[in-house]
Amino acid sequence: MSETWVTLVGNSATAVDYRETETGATARFRLAVTPRRWDRERQSWTDGRTSFYTVWARRTLAANLSGSVSVGEPLVVHGRLKVREEERDGVRKSSVDVEAVAIGHDLTRGTAAFRRIVRGNPALTAPTHRQNPATEAASMS
Amino acid sequence: MSETWVTLVGNSATAVDYRETETGATARFRLAVTPRRWDRERQSWTDGRTSFYTVWARRTLAANLSGSVSVGEPLVVHGRLKVREEERDGVRKSSVDVEAVAIGHDLTRGTAAFRRIVRGNPALTAPTHRQNPATEAASMS
Amino acid sequence: MSETWVTLVGNSATAVDYRETETGATARFRLAVTPRRWDRERQSWTDGRTSFYTVWARRTLAANLSGSVSVGEPLVVHGRLKVREEERDGVRKSSVDVEAVAIGHDLTRGTAAFRRIVRGNPALTAPTHRQNPATEAASMS
Amino acid sequence: MSETWVTLVGNSATAVDYRETETGATARFRLAVTPRRWDRERQSWTDGRTSFYTVWARRTLAANLSGSVSVGEPLVVHGRLKVREEERDGVRKSSVDVEAVAIGHDLTRGTAAFRRIVRGNPALTAPTHRQNPATEAASMS
Repeated sequence: MSETWVTLVGNSATAVDYRETETGATARFRLAVTPRRWDRERQSWTDGRTSFYTVWARRTLAANLSGSVSVGEPLVVHGRLKVREEERDGVRKSSVDVEAVAIGHDLTRGTAAFRRIVRGNPALTAPTHRQNPATEAASMS
Repeated sequence: MSETWVTLVGNSATAVDYRETETGATARFRLAVTPRRWDRERQSWTDGRTSFYTVWARRTLAANLSGSVSVGEPLVVHGRLKVREEERDGVRKSSVDVEAVAIGHDLTRGTAAFRRIVRGNPALTAPTHRQNPATEAASMS
Repeated sequence: MSETWVTLVGNSATAVDYRETETGATARFRLAVTPRRWDRERQSWTDGRTSFYTVWARRTLAANLSGSVSVGEPLVVHGRLKVREEERDGVRKSSVDVEAVAIGHDLTRGTAAFRRIVRGNPALTAPTHRQNPATEAASMS
Repeated sequence: MSETWVTLVGNSATAVDYRETETGATARFRLAVTPRRWDRERQSWTDGRTSFYTVWARRTLAANLSGSVSVGEPLVVHGRLKVREEERDGVRKSSVDVEAVAIGHDLTRGTAAFRRIVRGNPALTAPTHRQNPATEAASMS
């Protein structure tokens, strides 16, 4: 079967926990997602219940997250969804994880100054206007 | 039927075209998405063909996009997918639009400094650490 | 924030539990999703860990599910994802629910004979070839 | 970048065009998706504009589609989204394709009798209740 992909629009609910391990850098944080719905009876928007997810990142994404994201910031997270069930002391418990492949600050809520990291050398950054292979093929038709 | 939701991970292929109209601010740009796949025969990653989308934003998102995104930057875009078909001069043509509800710079490719915009007054910004309603409920279990 | 949409491709792991309540019909079942990945080192496909979800349906979908789906059948489920956390006897526990808006047998694994239910009268069925509003506008370009 | 995944809930707008080629079986059809929205001003549901997609399937899915799906049937389609742009006689034209990994009849609109196809031998079918590896691990908690 195929993987389960999910996109979460929410707020970081913890700081980013960044670690360097033998198999490479990893980072994780909790994300809170509170959907808003139009309530037809009340004729107003209302908040639904909040869902919490543990978001995981690796390598460059982990390092960039750690340097860019603080608690309470609005984010859009795209990745693979996993539900783990564990039994400890006779109690079954499930946790909900997302292995992120892309994460960004949600520009619906604010502005962001982006700085590209050159691959293979995270210490160096490059102005983004140098790297634009797709531009020639695109136009605002 | 339900709406068609899509998440695009790609690069802005044009500048953001921002306009203020009678019904509010709008912005649009073209996004290029080039998937990478593991090629089993060659034992290496290869690029697939690039797909182009026109991304639309409204109101605060339009204004923040305009102030934050330059050509060639890596983005994650989440929104509603629409395919419009038009016939002009006997030729059928389709365009593929995404009405964005969230857009962010992809932290897989670089770092970002985010600045929250206070609602109702885009001229004011607020430090993000003040706004964190969900934090108490979350922990790194 | 927007809702979290998810599409699950998996197998029903329980029978469908169908109930008629004062607020209408509901049905639920557990779905098992086991992603397959290409393992580069072993040069073969391997199964990942299985994730389990509780899928909920209402009204007509609930009734049709109950009449169509048996344990162990391959399904594609599209709906809203919710993570609920509860604390019982001092133990925090989370469950992962999907409020389905569309469910179908996965034709990757078998064939299906479909019978349309006329709205407002589930007892009546209609041959599908009578209902085809979109056909005129479509062609295999 | 990652692939673009999409789930479409709509109706088949053409018959399934099934072909056997040197590289295996393929099938395609056009799918019409018409989103419904709650119109706050009118206080009623209204139909949005219809989007059309070309859905492609391969191997077993292609064969099962061909034997199961007629024009006008409600379907849920999950797969990879591709936008192709071509220039013919000086006119740019784009088409929107979905490479399906799972397709099913939408049980929101009717009932379905499913029959599993045993892998490697599409001529044989097996009762689904024999194949249920995940059942033991699941319960309706």
